Amino acid sequence: MTSSAHFPTVGVVGAGQLTRMMIEASARLNINIKLLAETPIDCAALISNNVEIGDYKNYDTLRKFCENIDVLTFDHEHVPLEHLKKLELQGVKIRPGIKALSCAQDKAIMRTTLSEAKLDMPRWAIVKNKEEIENFAAKIGWPLVIKSSVGGYDGKGVWIAQDITEVQKIIESPIKESSQWLVEERVNFKRELAVHVARSPHGQSVVYPVVQSTQVDGVCEEVIAPAPNLSDNHASQIQAIALKIAELLDVIGVFSVELFDLGDGKVLINELAMRPHNSGHWTIDGSNTSQFENHLRAILDLPLGSPSLTSPNTVMVNVLGGQFDDMYKPFMHCMARDPELKIHLYGKEVKLGRKVGHVNICGEKVSDLLERAHHAADYLTGKITE
Amino acid sequence: MTSSAHFPTVGVVGAGQLTRMMIEASARLNINIKLLAETPIDCAALISNNVEIGDYKNYDTLRKFCENIDVLTFDHEHVPLEHLKKLELQGVKIRPGIKALSCAQDKAIMRTTLSEAKLDMPRWAIVKNKEEIENFAAKIGWPLVIKSSVGGYDGKGVWIAQDITEVQKIIESPIKESSQWLVEERVNFKRELAVHVARSPHGQSVVYPVVQSTQVDGVCEEVIAPAPNLSDNHASQIQAIALKIAELLDVIGVFSVELFDLGDGKVLINELAMRPHNSGHWTIDGSNTSQFENHLRAILDLPLGSPSLTSPNTVMVNVLGGQFDDMYKPFMHCMARDPELKIHLYGKEVKLGRKVGHVNICGEKVSDLLERAHHAADYLTGKITE
Repeated sequence: MTSSAHFPTVGVVGAGQLTRMMIEASARLNINIKLLAETPIDCAALISNNVEIGDYKNYDTLRKFCENIDVLTFDHEHVPLEHLKKLELQGVKIRPGIKALSCAQDKAIMRTTLSEAKLDMPRWAIVKNKEEIENFAAKIGWPLVIKSSVGGYDGKGVWIAQDITEVQKIIESPIKESSQWLVEERVNFKRELAVHVARSPHGQSVVYPVVQSTQVDGVCEEVIAPAPNLSDNHASQIQAIALKIAELLDVIGVFSVELFDLGDGKVLINELAMRPHNSGHWTIDGSNTSQFENHLRAILDLPLGSPSLTSPNTVMVNVLGGQFDDMYKPFMHCMARDPELKIHLYGKEVKLGRKVGHVNICGEKVSDLLERAHHAADYLTGKITE
Repeated sequence: MTSSAHFPTVGVVGAGQLTRMMIEASARLNINIKLLAETPIDCAALISNNVEIGDYKNYDTLRKFCENIDVLTFDHEHVPLEHLKKLELQGVKIRPGIKALSCAQDKAIMRTTLSEAKLDMPRWAIVKNKEEIENFAAKIGWPLVIKSSVGGYDGKGVWIAQDITEVQKIIESPIKESSQWLVEERVNFKRELAVHVARSPHGQSVVYPVVQSTQVDGVCEEVIAPAPNLSDNHASQIQAIALKIAELLDVIGVFSVELFDLGDGKVLINELAMRPHNSGHWTIDGSNTSQFENHLRAILDLPLGSPSLTSPNTVMVNVLGGQFDDMYKPFMHCMARDPELKIHLYGKEVKLGRKVGHVNICGEKVSDLLERAHHAADYLTGKITE
């Protein structure tokens, strides 16, 4: 019997880069990871030796997948909740948990739940048609943010409507899973912040430093950790909000809160993600325990690792698919230019705008780290050639 | 076509913990690793999706294994050199290279080569029988260190003889691969040091800080990085020795030099290892680029990563198999006691004295780090229970 025999197996639905980075974190913990992938070339499947290929929307596939695992977790929020409820009744440990997942899957439930807890958010309403949107606009004015309450991610399923003529186009757009929409005021924020919490079944929580994130077209582009020009007091308040939500929703695992910073000491909660998140990739190199390791520790009810910084500052910049489909030569160039750069590639087919990797760099001076990380990301994708 | 298609594949002979940690380092670099393992439960095979099972002493097995790889590297030094020479003639890139491997495989060649370069070592002789050992002892006195010139590792194949009556037992001992022995003076050293270099085919080298290592029964027990009470000047001299050897032997990849520190500013070269080494495991958490990542970068002629420290000090302590065969509960206990501890488990079957993992801890105060790392290692193996 190997010593592995006593160690648990985590089942992960979805085989994208989040799962790939979970596998990377699992080896030294001697934790086994089994994947339910959609195709054998999903990027986590490429590095896994325990993959089932199947449709996560099919209950029987899920049930069979859960037979030899200790806990079930997720790369995304698209697994039908009714399937998970049935699996839970059969004793499958669903992590982060049904309540947390329902908030992540349906933004209307998320807004309703957080409002009941009196947490600060943009003004919002759940609407079913154009007339209800007009009534909401009459109260708070244009433009409005219109969100598909289910099925959106990375800016998909989110629109800005300048006036009522634009609304018609949006509510006839392809994402039709919603029978309702969430409409929100468009917040005039100074910047976006994010914070990550790991929470275990027995209630132990750790919270990472608050970071500043920049989105372009709804996709995370850059993260600075910790967020510059944020007082300790303000950072603690934001961490307290995240911990409050974790407890409120009984989250198990890593979850993230994205917030609007209004610049007057006030923040509004934008989105929640019930899993490791792009805005937390900096933790792989910038923190004592990465979000992926702490996710595994949390869902298995292992004691959590320290979220402390390994460096005064860390910058993360996403690498989005560009005109190069062979990234190996630019990869070499970036390594040669900057021996301290940590380039993380996901092994994905390069498509325009697709997340194919990220770079982390740790050090003292944020402006210097930003220049180096953006240079690498731009060079890797062919946006610049020197 | 996935972006992986342009990325190289590294073939590794051997599937122990060194290979396992190479696989961990490979994922984010998008480098493919293919293994030649002895059994499917070799600890690197347990986490790999590209394993061939076969005998590394069989030439045809090796040749077939090399068909779809870009470079060949090793977990150990036991592959027959004549096979590697034939493979090299057929165009296989052997890393670290034949010259370096011959020094690692045969201590007599190593001593001869380094002596020609006028590097400081314990006084030594190559001997074929008891009479030649007596002649050497007559010159330098007892006790003597007697080493099997090939086939030894982790203290195996190394004996101390107090007098000539002990010699007889040793040269009839089971390790018989040597038709000759290396005999050396027993050095009265103050401590042991080690230093690690990564060197690439185009000659780029990086050298890690010099560390202090403690061996018990020939097995590495503890490493302190950087070595305490070592002047910058002395450390630079030792790093220069390692760089000189790397160039002399045309090493490609990571290699390590173990030295005796005589305490008077003088060091003697003890052993060389032509691969990542136990005394370099601290780099996984304590350095910007681990020895495993730099080994992959070096053998693929990728630019090397920075060997700079991420923390003022890092302590590594080996976890040796003890009375627990279920390590999961002590693993939880150690995590709970110390959230900053980085426990690395290899997934190996627990056997008494076998290397089954190591712990790293980074911080300021060496005495504190030593206490914490030894506590964890002792608890994990059942030596202590609180």
